[in-house]
Amino acid sequence: MDTELKIIGYARSDFKNRSETPKQGCEGGIEAVLEIDEAYLEAMDGLKEGSEIILLTWMHAADRSYLKVHPRGDETRPKRGVFSTRSPDRPNPVGLHPVTITGIDGNKIRVHPLEAIDGTPLIDIKNAYSPKA
Amino acid sequence: MDTELKIIGYARSDFKNRSETPKQGCEGGIEAVLEIDEAYLEAMDGLKEGSEIILLTWMHAADRSYLKVHPRGDETRPKRGVFSTRSPDRPNPVGLHPVTITGIDGNKIRVHPLEAIDGTPLIDIKNAYSPKA
Repeated sequence: MDTELKIIGYARSDFKNRSETPKQGCEGGIEAVLEIDEAYLEAMDGLKEGSEIILLTWMHAADRSYLKVHPRGDETRPKRGVFSTRSPDRPNPVGLHPVTITGIDGNKIRVHPLEAIDGTPLIDIKNAYSPKA
Repeated sequence: MDTELKIIGYARSDFKNRSETPKQGCEGGIEAVLEIDEAYLEAMDGLKEGSEIILLTWMHAADRSYLKVHPRGDETRPKRGVFSTRSPDRPNPVGLHPVTITGIDGNKIRVHPLEAIDGTPLIDIKNAYSPKA
């Protein structure tokens, strides 16, 4: 079975480290740019300003060995299995980001609000409105 | 960079082929079972009946070479880039399934409504309510 991820591009963001990012895009995410690999340009057809999309990233700064964490990093809360949290530290650190497209220029897609750090690999973009698309 | 996916378990479903499944869980998905690999049991801590989760799968029956498709397989609709659709055929066939847990028994999580086919590899489970978790 072919389970090798293809990196379709990278996030360009003013957030440079995990420590400075909010937990979720809706909690202080910023405008950022998705730089799509030219090989996948055709797959962008149909995306436009105002489109609501679900971006999937590979959170490369995560620790994949964690099975339990303090929810939201709050040590006053008891540890819980990562599958019942949104911690980036998990066996497969796939980031799930609902964002809106604020502009497109060639292979560059401007989105808001994103909490991913600069250089985060992108693995998928999906239409946010599944039943219509 | 470590981008090798870890398979955390498999879906067990009465849907055996792509041709018999609905496009989305909310369009006729059924109750199905997530069989979690014993190595990830600890990561399940905190999940319970009634929990709303986002399941990520690896849609192994997808064709990863497609960059454009007819939306919803409807040939009367013009082809569009896969990133503006929910087609399973895409560079990284990550399935995104919002489901509710209807029961847990050891390493088996019963969920509803799921449209994934029997044997689909599982790659992640996330709490559906990001800001609280």
